[in-house]
Amino acid sequence: MKNKLFIVGIGPGESTLMAPRAVQAIESSEVVVGYQLYLDLVADLTAGKEILERPLGEETERVQAALVSTASGRDTALISSGDVGIYALATLVFEQMEAREAWRDLDVEVVPGISAMQVAAARAGAPLGHDFCAISLSDLLTPWEVIQKRVDAAAAGDFVVAFYNPVSRRRDWQLRDALDRLLAQRGGGVPVILARQLGRDEEQVRVVPLGELDVTEVDMLTVVVVGNSETRQFQGAGIGPWVYTPRGYAGKSL
Amino acid sequence: MKNKLFIVGIGPGESTLMAPRAVQAIESSEVVVGYQLYLDLVADLTAGKEILERPLGEETERVQAALVSTASGRDTALISSGDVGIYALATLVFEQMEAREAWRDLDVEVVPGISAMQVAAARAGAPLGHDFCAISLSDLLTPWEVIQKRVDAAAAGDFVVAFYNPVSRRRDWQLRDALDRLLAQRGGGVPVILARQLGRDEEQVRVVPLGELDVTEVDMLTVVVVGNSETRQFQGAGIGPWVYTPRGYAGKSL
Repeated sequence: MKNKLFIVGIGPGESTLMAPRAVQAIESSEVVVGYQLYLDLVADLTAGKEILERPLGEETERVQAALVSTASGRDTALISSGDVGIYALATLVFEQMEAREAWRDLDVEVVPGISAMQVAAARAGAPLGHDFCAISLSDLLTPWEVIQKRVDAAAAGDFVVAFYNPVSRRRDWQLRDALDRLLAQRGGGVPVILARQLGRDEEQVRVVPLGELDVTEVDMLTVVVVGNSETRQFQGAGIGPWVYTPRGYAGKSL
Repeated sequence: MKNKLFIVGIGPGESTLMAPRAVQAIESSEVVVGYQLYLDLVADLTAGKEILERPLGEETERVQAALVSTASGRDTALISSGDVGIYALATLVFEQMEAREAWRDLDVEVVPGISAMQVAAARAGAPLGHDFCAISLSDLLTPWEVIQKRVDAAAAGDFVVAFYNPVSRRRDWQLRDALDRLLAQRGGGVPVILARQLGRDEEQVRVVPLGELDVTEVDMLTVVVVGNSETRQFQGAGIGPWVYTPRGYAGKSL
């Protein structure tokens, strides 16, 4: 039987939100490739396996290590938090496979996972209950003009917006710029969900009005979900308000 | 201890993609509320429980049955396929809670799940590897002009687009209109993934160029994922091509 590369999304970090298929994929692999933080999350599944760790920033090296391992005849799992298909390593695997003849025919299975915006949404209520988009604010690989146009399009379409990679150590002004573009279209009263360290003990979820959001309170471990013009909130029994986006636009136009 | 309403996304239909938290939520509930097709998917978890079935089209009744059951003091699970927070019942629960004082303080937990677009993406490669949006083409609750504007915005932003509810028995022309709007912006060569009956034995995933898509081949059980101008494909060892959207726009502008 031909050996296999599993590209695995392990979900947000708590094991109860990891799909059984992700567990199976890791358990059936001889080699597990990842970044240390993710490897720690699945440490109870990887005893006795060969572990290939590559640090943050060395994504291409991590992907190539997984492809080399698979091509050498060993079942291999390349792991990533959240959904490996959403702002994660799956696309880089296919890019590398297309580029190198020897890798093109490898047997690959992508195992989807629950992404950060979905957990953020679940904790806060149902802000993704109607049309939404996901935008990464990282301009490492995408020119800022492209990101800006995309934010403007999200505003024009009144999409609920999930921002991934909102800030980094060297990048702090993009989130302010993006929020200002949404603010101009949908006003400052719209609820924004700031969800940090999801699925970990340190998890924090806060809801603030778009007009009052202080971007210095957002760090690289935060996912930011901005409601659209229809998104509502009310105080329930929980600590914060529930936030939801109704299914319809009954009688309204943008 | 106060009783609880679990709003549960059970994933695409195959049990290996259902989060353990969803299983726990159903197992710990006395009452399970759902549509028959979804109840069948979790039949092995619901033996001995009270089952409240409400047919398709009676979403409000299903949600109210779950809220009444919870308010009467019984732990209750309201289930939905995919992610219950994405085009599903979670938002309707919060809408009903806000509307009725007696329900507002209920203890609620939303359990996220893997949504159809994520499974479609995983089967085809990594088309959601960069910014994307989700749009429902159902105009039952949203005026068509609003949906059109949103599709135009998705085109302007060059988003990868996942269309939910692409057609229904009484609604067949909207998908053609939406695809034509994307075609005008990104051209006919862009790959489109048609994913049908995901997670079931009858699962079918096809990749066709945007310019050659025949909308009569799309039915209400299909999710349609349209690549953006950067989405690529290549032939691997599988039956169809792999489709992926690169992480970057290196050197390009929209």
